[in-house]
Amino acid sequence: MEPSSGWDGPTFQPLVVLELASNTPQEAVAWLLSRIRDGQQNGGAELLVEQLSPGAADGGEKDNPNLFVVGASWQRLLCGAEDCGLFKEYSDGSMRGFTCANQHRFKGFTGAGDDFLSMAECQYIIKHQLEALRAKDETHVPGYSQAKLYPGKSIIRRLQSKGILVQMFPLHDKEELKRLSFSWYRTVRLSLQPLDAIRRYFGEGQALYFGFLEYFTIALLPMAVLGVPYYLFDWENYDKYVLFAVFNLVWCTVLLEVWKRYSATLAYCWGTLSRKKAFEEPRPGFHGVLGLNPVTGRKEPVFPSVSRQLRIYLVSLPFVLLCLYLSLYVMMIYFQLEGWALSVYDEDPTLWTEVLTYIPSIVYAVVIEAVNLLYRYAAEFLTEWENHRRESSYQNHLVLKVLVSLATLLITSQVLNQLMEAFLPYWLQRRRNKKMIRKVLRRRAIEEKELPLAEQVRLEADMSTYLGTFDDYLELFLLFGYVSLFSCIYPLAAVLVVLNNITEVYSDAFKMCKLFKRPFADPAGSIGVWQLAFETISVIAVVTNCALIGMSPQVKAYFPESATQLILWTVAVEHLLLGFKFILAFLIPDVPKHIRVKLAQIEFESLEALKKKKILEASKPDAE
Amino acid sequence: MEPSSGWDGPTFQPLVVLELASNTPQEAVAWLLSRIRDGQQNGGAELLVEQLSPGAADGGEKDNPNLFVVGASWQRLLCGAEDCGLFKEYSDGSMRGFTCANQHRFKGFTGAGDDFLSMAECQYIIKHQLEALRAKDETHVPGYSQAKLYPGKSIIRRLQSKGILVQMFPLHDKEELKRLSFSWYRTVRLSLQPLDAIRRYFGEGQALYFGFLEYFTIALLPMAVLGVPYYLFDWENYDKYVLFAVFNLVWCTVLLEVWKRYSATLAYCWGTLSRKKAFEEPRPGFHGVLGLNPVTGRKEPVFPSVSRQLRIYLVSLPFVLLCLYLSLYVMMIYFQLEGWALSVYDEDPTLWTEVLTYIPSIVYAVVIEAVNLLYRYAAEFLTEWENHRRESSYQNHLVLKVLVSLATLLITSQVLNQLMEAFLPYWLQRRRNKKMIRKVLRRRAIEEKELPLAEQVRLEADMSTYLGTFDDYLELFLLFGYVSLFSCIYPLAAVLVVLNNITEVYSDAFKMCKLFKRPFADPAGSIGVWQLAFETISVIAVVTNCALIGMSPQVKAYFPESATQLILWTVAVEHLLLGFKFILAFLIPDVPKHIRVKLAQIEFESLEALKKKKILEASKPDAE
Repeated sequence: MEPSSGWDGPTFQPLVVLELASNTPQEAVAWLLSRIRDGQQNGGAELLVEQLSPGAADGGEKDNPNLFVVGASWQRLLCGAEDCGLFKEYSDGSMRGFTCANQHRFKGFTGAGDDFLSMAECQYIIKHQLEALRAKDETHVPGYSQAKLYPGKSIIRRLQSKGILVQMFPLHDKEELKRLSFSWYRTVRLSLQPLDAIRRYFGEGQALYFGFLEYFTIALLPMAVLGVPYYLFDWENYDKYVLFAVFNLVWCTVLLEVWKRYSATLAYCWGTLSRKKAFEEPRPGFHGVLGLNPVTGRKEPVFPSVSRQLRIYLVSLPFVLLCLYLSLYVMMIYFQLEGWALSVYDEDPTLWTEVLTYIPSIVYAVVIEAVNLLYRYAAEFLTEWENHRRESSYQNHLVLKVLVSLATLLITSQVLNQLMEAFLPYWLQRRRNKKMIRKVLRRRAIEEKELPLAEQVRLEADMSTYLGTFDDYLELFLLFGYVSLFSCIYPLAAVLVVLNNITEVYSDAFKMCKLFKRPFADPAGSIGVWQLAFETISVIAVVTNCALIGMSPQVKAYFPESATQLILWTVAVEHLLLGFKFILAFLIPDVPKHIRVKLAQIEFESLEALKKKKILEASKPDAE
Repeated sequence: MEPSSGWDGPTFQPLVVLELASNTPQEAVAWLLSRIRDGQQNGGAELLVEQLSPGAADGGEKDNPNLFVVGASWQRLLCGAEDCGLFKEYSDGSMRGFTCANQHRFKGFTGAGDDFLSMAECQYIIKHQLEALRAKDETHVPGYSQAKLYPGKSIIRRLQSKGILVQMFPLHDKEELKRLSFSWYRTVRLSLQPLDAIRRYFGEGQALYFGFLEYFTIALLPMAVLGVPYYLFDWENYDKYVLFAVFNLVWCTVLLEVWKRYSATLAYCWGTLSRKKAFEEPRPGFHGVLGLNPVTGRKEPVFPSVSRQLRIYLVSLPFVLLCLYLSLYVMMIYFQLEGWALSVYDEDPTLWTEVLTYIPSIVYAVVIEAVNLLYRYAAEFLTEWENHRRESSYQNHLVLKVLVSLATLLITSQVLNQLMEAFLPYWLQRRRNKKMIRKVLRRRAIEEKELPLAEQVRLEADMSTYLGTFDDYLELFLLFGYVSLFSCIYPLAAVLVVLNNITEVYSDAFKMCKLFKRPFADPAGSIGVWQLAFETISVIAVVTNCALIGMSPQVKAYFPESATQLILWTVAVEHLLLGFKFILAFLIPDVPKHIRVKLAQIEFESLEALKKKKILEASKPDAE
């Protein structure tokens, strides 16, 4: 076996790694490589691809020889950027879709340098080009008669769904990563995160998550600062608590509305706000009979949306509702058990009976954790089975299922004041994370030294795959739930969340840089369905806070003669607050004015340009 | 004075009438006509315009000689259609922006016929071209040194704001009008209204109003049918009333969501759904210092939006709130007076004291009617003073002010069960309408005969101007309020509204065809702010219905021991209904799937076309 030092690596900058199954027949490999290398006029991807030399050192037979690095020429990348509809800054400072024809009018375009497109952008372009590589007249993948192809089918998607393509991931850039990690988390700073650098390295989706985490932390500071005196002094005067709760409720609305504006500004500067998502390929798991896509006219699997609706409303929805009912039932059993344990302790207060009072809570916490895990699998299975065509629609339905279950548990268990127990699953989760981090710390020493490309690729291929921002957002969502839903009875929640978030920034940044394979950039223009989830919680928070305040003995004391009057007042205040929230959300524009002006500007210019073009065309004879 | 019979009328089809003030100096008239006739390359409008011969018969000195009819050549109208971004049906059945270059690929385009563009479209195009006629280097209107102009200022807008242009209106087409009125209201039919013909004659805004009126009437039928047995049998079992109310609340949501889909379908077929409104001129009343429009780069008056916000929040908002407070105060006084009158009658029940009990209601109804009129003027004045740049924004703020006041009166007066009194202002309003209609009926006999153009124009110039759909929608809005807000206590409301709407279709159609000048077509894509207003009412309806049911003695009887429990149940049901409404509104897509597919199709094709164009351009040298 050839040692890695005898091989000089590819003649181009390697950007993306393709790993085929180790038993892939040679004819399939040769066919794939020729399709990738073939010119665009022949329907190929016109990319550069080279096989990696077999690994060094530890007994070769384990190493997969079918590792390929993919790159592209500078000119090919620019064409690809135009294909994906990448937005770049124009010479007049506006953001425009990049076109090769106008390339010199874009800021920072020097001709042959490699600063114009970031490495993450190049990798995204290559992924896009690979996924757009379509079958011509092949009926199946050579060597795999069961891996059917038809004209227009994405080759990479078919290889993925048949398990021939094991993984495809972008390579880390050790130099840039080192620089990024120093400015990001390896020094304790008071400044903000380097969002632009994060976006440059990891893409817009990641940068928006970290931007949201940071914004959320800062936006909670007023609630945290106001919460401390409420906690410390335990004022008798309950008016102040009501004031605090009202402030929090209004603040939550303002916070989310202002985030929308901030995120629009970020997305505009990163060029993802007005960028039309190219007409997405179906997600890899999507299946159906072969038909015509009504929009693109391409052949692709078609699945009737009526069947999907039936699956959603007749199976998934009843299942979710059943799970909700069961979880509430289990909670009731838990309360009964705890009541029984407390009564035993009351009758006979010994050490053993005291221990007994803790047992229901511990058992409940463990059961909840286990059941939640099961439910999560079931939700993923059901959403997969619903057979959504687009990735975004899959994500939305998954988030919805998980959140409905979580929010219900959260609200019911908390309204009944089980603060500590509910925190337990969360702490368990965090402990698991910490274990992972320790594992990595041990590996870190090895990684620090300079490695030849082949070994570096194999090392990264073994790293865990980052599964997207779902769990990160979920954690923030739970924290936001605690802060907003019960702010009036637990004023210190915001303080704890702020402290947690600060460590979260560091640990998440560390995870992203050291623990995982580099993820492909995701040109996100917003935080998507999570905005809706956070807004929903802030509406529910009005109900829970009003209910909690209405139930408090201090407020009850104001209406000693009539509980009816108390409730009517509470309901009236709640309706006013809800109305105020909706009006506020309606009045605050979602996109700041200067961004709206810039967007309108471009639209106006393109309309004018279209008119001019039309006048020119009209003077020529009509070419029917 | 030349008799009209000696004059053959203009050599082109007259489409739009311009009436200048009778004392306009000749130099201003000559200048305006030359600018209208001038070629487009010289910055003119390139339209045909001719002065109307002075009127016949009744003692000439009253007739204004400055009446002009405007028309255009067939080719000019086609160019204008492209300028306004008119959407037409393409050969493949999709709706596309009309372009002269592709004119032969549009359906129904024959080359020189006049069926491709409807008369209403031609008139809209001429209005658009006239309004787009801009000053070049003139500093003022000749003969009017105070009517300032600057390069790029719309000439017609300036003439309007200075009162030099008295009015501009499109001419009726007697033949088509006769055909339309026969198929619309002059025969009693069971079929639906000829919406396409209405749209062809009056434009999309009008057609959407009539479409909504019809849809609304049909959508209320289930509520009306269900309401009759509730009214007739006066069931003791209150469960049934609750069921009826719940059905109504859900039905209102479904009704409005389905309307959105239906209106999107209509607007798509009429080409106004995806049509971008050209970057609107400021509305005629808008004023400010001369500056640059940040979007178009044109010179135009600029008014800082901060000043507008200050005017809205520091003056208009407090004023509206004060009016609300006063109207509630007056209502309280009325209730006290009525209580006093009733007590007098109770003590001494004679005919005179019985009459006395009616007096507070009558006085209150008259006062409300008068105060509402005053408030309406104040709202218009304030909205004008807020100085909105766009007509749509002006409309939104006006609608908001009027509705806030109306909705509050409606809800408070109705919750307190003053059904009959609140109907009185409405009946007064309707009596006024009927008076107007009688006036017209007398005039009808004269109009029926064939008139020469000059007299026809003068006759139409004297007709009242249709002020838009505001009052028509307002009336529907009030009716919807009665139906939805109090459906549970007045099950027959829907029946009455359905009956009223059927007569409304006929009377409104008659008004449009006979009473008013023809209005310019308004390329509306939806019913705009009214959709929001109707949806808001349907949310408030949940609150009022739950409150009314909760207050009813029959429901109270279910919770004899505890009022608290009753209220808690009511509130819980209300929250569930509200949540259900929002989820329902969220789940029903606003645009039907087949329309979404068609829109995506066009977007995809234009993206593909852009790519091809780019590839062609990239092969040429970059023309910097």
